[in-house]
Amino acid sequence: DPTYAYEKMRRQLELDMKELWYTVRGHASSIGHTDFEQIQDIYRLLRSYLLKLRQEDGYETYRERETQELSKIMQNRIRTLQNPPDCEKAKKVVCSINKGCGFGCQIHHVVYCMVVAYATSRTLILESKGWRYNRQGWEKVFLPVSDTCTNPSGSSRADWGSGNHDVQVLTLPIVDFMKPRPPFLPITIPSDIAGRLEKVHGDPHIWWVGQFVTYLLRMQPQTQVLLDEAKSKMDISSPTVGVHVRRTDKVGTEASFHPLKEYMVHVEEYFAIREKYEGPVQRRVFIASDDPNVISEASRTYTSSEWQIMGDRTVAQSASVAQRYNGLIGIIKDVFLLAECDYVVCTFSSQVCRLAYEIMQTKHADASGRFVSLDDIYYYGGGSGTIQKAQFVHKPRSSGELELEVGDKIGVAGNHWNGMSKGTNQRTNKVGLYPSYKARNVFAKVNFPRDKWWTLSGEV
Amino acid sequence: DPTYAYEKMRRQLELDMKELWYTVRGHASSIGHTDFEQIQDIYRLLRSYLLKLRQEDGYETYRERETQELSKIMQNRIRTLQNPPDCEKAKKVVCSINKGCGFGCQIHHVVYCMVVAYATSRTLILESKGWRYNRQGWEKVFLPVSDTCTNPSGSSRADWGSGNHDVQVLTLPIVDFMKPRPPFLPITIPSDIAGRLEKVHGDPHIWWVGQFVTYLLRMQPQTQVLLDEAKSKMDISSPTVGVHVRRTDKVGTEASFHPLKEYMVHVEEYFAIREKYEGPVQRRVFIASDDPNVISEASRTYTSSEWQIMGDRTVAQSASVAQRYNGLIGIIKDVFLLAECDYVVCTFSSQVCRLAYEIMQTKHADASGRFVSLDDIYYYGGGSGTIQKAQFVHKPRSSGELELEVGDKIGVAGNHWNGMSKGTNQRTNKVGLYPSYKARNVFAKVNFPRDKWWTLSGEV
Ligand SMILES: Nc1nc2c(ncn2[C@@H]2O[C@H](COP(=O)(O)OP(=O)(O)O)[C@@H](O)[C@H]2O)c(=O)[nH]1
Ligand SMILES: Nc1nc2c(ncn2[C@@H]2O[C@H](COP(=O)(O)OP(=O)(O)O)[C@@H](O)[C@H]2O)c(=O)[nH]1
Repeated sequence: DPTYAYEKMRRQLELDMKELWYTVRGHASSIGHTDFEQIQDIYRLLRSYLLKLRQEDGYETYRERETQELSKIMQNRIRTLQNPPDCEKAKKVVCSINKGCGFGCQIHHVVYCMVVAYATSRTLILESKGWRYNRQGWEKVFLPVSDTCTNPSGSSRADWGSGNHDVQVLTLPIVDFMKPRPPFLPITIPSDIAGRLEKVHGDPHIWWVGQFVTYLLRMQPQTQVLLDEAKSKMDISSPTVGVHVRRTDKVGTEASFHPLKEYMVHVEEYFAIREKYEGPVQRRVFIASDDPNVISEASRTYTSSEWQIMGDRTVAQSASVAQRYNGLIGIIKDVFLLAECDYVVCTFSSQVCRLAYEIMQTKHADASGRFVSLDDIYYYGGGSGTIQKAQFVHKPRSSGELELEVGDKIGVAGNHWNGMSKGTNQRTNKVGLYPSYKARNVFAKVNFPRDKWWTLSGEV
Repeated sequence: DPTYAYEKMRRQLELDMKELWYTVRGHASSIGHTDFEQIQDIYRLLRSYLLKLRQEDGYETYRERETQELSKIMQNRIRTLQNPPDCEKAKKVVCSINKGCGFGCQIHHVVYCMVVAYATSRTLILESKGWRYNRQGWEKVFLPVSDTCTNPSGSSRADWGSGNHDVQVLTLPIVDFMKPRPPFLPITIPSDIAGRLEKVHGDPHIWWVGQFVTYLLRMQPQTQVLLDEAKSKMDISSPTVGVHVRRTDKVGTEASFHPLKEYMVHVEEYFAIREKYEGPVQRRVFIASDDPNVISEASRTYTSSEWQIMGDRTVAQSASVAQRYNGLIGIIKDVFLLAECDYVVCTFSSQVCRLAYEIMQTKHADASGRFVSLDDIYYYGGGSGTIQKAQFVHKPRSSGELELEVGDKIGVAGNHWNGMSKGTNQRTNKVGLYPSYKARNVFAKVNFPRDKWWTLSGEV
């Protein structure tokens, strides 16, 4: 097995190489065409070496084995929790799927409930009657969250908000109304596997969320058939880049408009890097959107034979604001096909793309870094934001910049993808910009409860 | 053991990271101070990660063991060759040290003789009476090149130039007059260990020359005492950067003048990279020069406590043009102390620095890349020049640039250390500039003779 230091250095090389490039790329015109292209070309080459280095360093089997083992541990734990020996006596949390929002948002809502269940050693009971995506409920589409325990009743019952957490049945509000706010909400990682997880995965907190998503979204056979059909039509074989373009009601309210071209710059960059060591590849692009015109535009624009543009206009049509809640199979297809891709280009302001990226983490040994977001960094809606720790001193070079001392904690607002990030220094309480490479994500490690239900099944 | 692909990628990352930086660094003013410093800082960080990555990848013991084993093989071979069972009957090459040039140049001359000896399975007889550096000869300072066979006589004798290579004793001219010119002169690598060597070492051809230098420059005890004295005075402990400043007769004739400051930029860069992961270090600098003023200037300029400037003015004085050939111990000290350093900054136009760098290769597991040359790339005077192979197509972007197809061989004239190199495309016979990262060194692998004397000693 590799050392932790090796894995860290290897990942840090990639992260900071990107930050170097983000800092350079705005200067194309001042550097001049010739040298700028040369710098870009070397940058791509370096990135390709890093991909190759990872393949060749002799530790990839460790990465695969280790993430599979950790997944197995987590899936077993959740399964054990969800199938208590005696449902009559089991402690439960009850959660209704009917948060007034879209599919990605609702799944994240259920994931939050499941994290509460995990943290409090309770079985999650999911209420989904009258679900806006399927009136008949969750189980028509996905496997039930428990095989043996679906009854929400119990001897005593209270709301989380009541402060009475000793009852058998605890009902959960949506995360935004959670009072008191528990410290274990994402983004966190469980301390008992934190060491292994942080060694093998660059974004352990996303992997962790991905485990709950994966458990939840186990398909009913008939759903799986539909998904398999979509897969067989689409040829998401490697390398394929997934592009998610969120339009319709999101644009102008919660996110800005980004033309297709802006996404495609990053798609081209991805393929250019791969081609550095593989030679010319068939550039497959899978496009998912709630606006069918995006797919037509891409097909019209990328007509040369190196490109293969894939996407289902009818699925996108079913995501129109009017149709949306009849389009469950469509959004499932899109999310899972995006997660099948090698890389995803999207706006992380959209829950749909974040969901796909979370699932993607469970499909590769370490899928951190397999994305470009045109706007936000990854976050968990309603959870706590990303915290970074300053690795280097920073002295403001202009007004609007943050002062940093080594070890300062920063609440990150966003990465501007130009070498700079914005955040709040929790020591000084000031808001400002700082060079992204000077700080690193740190994750709250949560000591999930002492009475660990999963020890029942033998595993520590 | 690591795979060849891994070692190659790891080294290529460093080489091309440097080329990226060389391409960027000329644009400081157009990029603007803030972002330029940020780019430089990230670059240094990336370089430090690479150092750390190598330390942590689990293969450093392989690198140490492997280079030690290969050294042992080579040293044994040379020793066996130099101590034939019967000196009376042994085939010999005779070589006089008295080439009309300086110490570095003369050592390289003897190395060339030794390579001829190795290639032709002959014992080298070194004639050194009246040596300009010590009238009494080589053996007053260094161990004899043979313990058992120093007699140049034999039953038949001819000059290399006569074309009669079957005689017992073959006398060698200086390399410049060698006709016919054999194909095995440096820079080459021996094919029987080429695979192992190219895997473990980034500059196998320099390592190879270093093996002959190391064999040759085995000290007499009294020389070793003087060298040890110098070492104990100087504290060349890690990290120390060696700076060699060649002045006096060289400047304006064979090389340009470079102010001390120009060397020190690279010294600072080296320490800045180390400090990225080690924190502040004592910045030890060992300065060797044929001009004592350089040492005084450095001591005057770098007075703050982080710096420790070392250098021996009297040694430098002994290298003045008038004194030079009385200064043998001085130049030996300087060369060996330079070779002890972690890194060397110099002009590779000087044989003195190239010699030190060759010796350095035998002191570390893989010391390629532990240098900055302000002018030439490494070369072997009188040998064949560096050949590169184009890895990527290059279309000239302006007049003066070379056109390259993948696989084109390029005779390299030099690296301009700004991202571009100059050379002759051997396919088109044109001379011009090309981006350095688009081509890689390739080494002629020489099948040293079938009747391998070293098989006598068991080793294949
Ligand atoms: N089929 C399909 N629907 C989408 C896509 N993107 C967005 N949608 C629709 O838009 C809704 C998005 O709502 P939500 O999950 O809250 O994500 P967000 O608004 O993008 O953050 C989903 O429920 C879908 O109906 C897509 O790529 N494909
Ligand atoms: N002691 C000492 N002598 C030096 C140094 N650099 C050059 N010299 C002198 O200059 C001569 C260099 O001649 P040569 O070996 O042909 O190297 P080159 O002229 O620098 O390529 C040596 O023999 C030394 O006498 C140095 O750093 N220290």
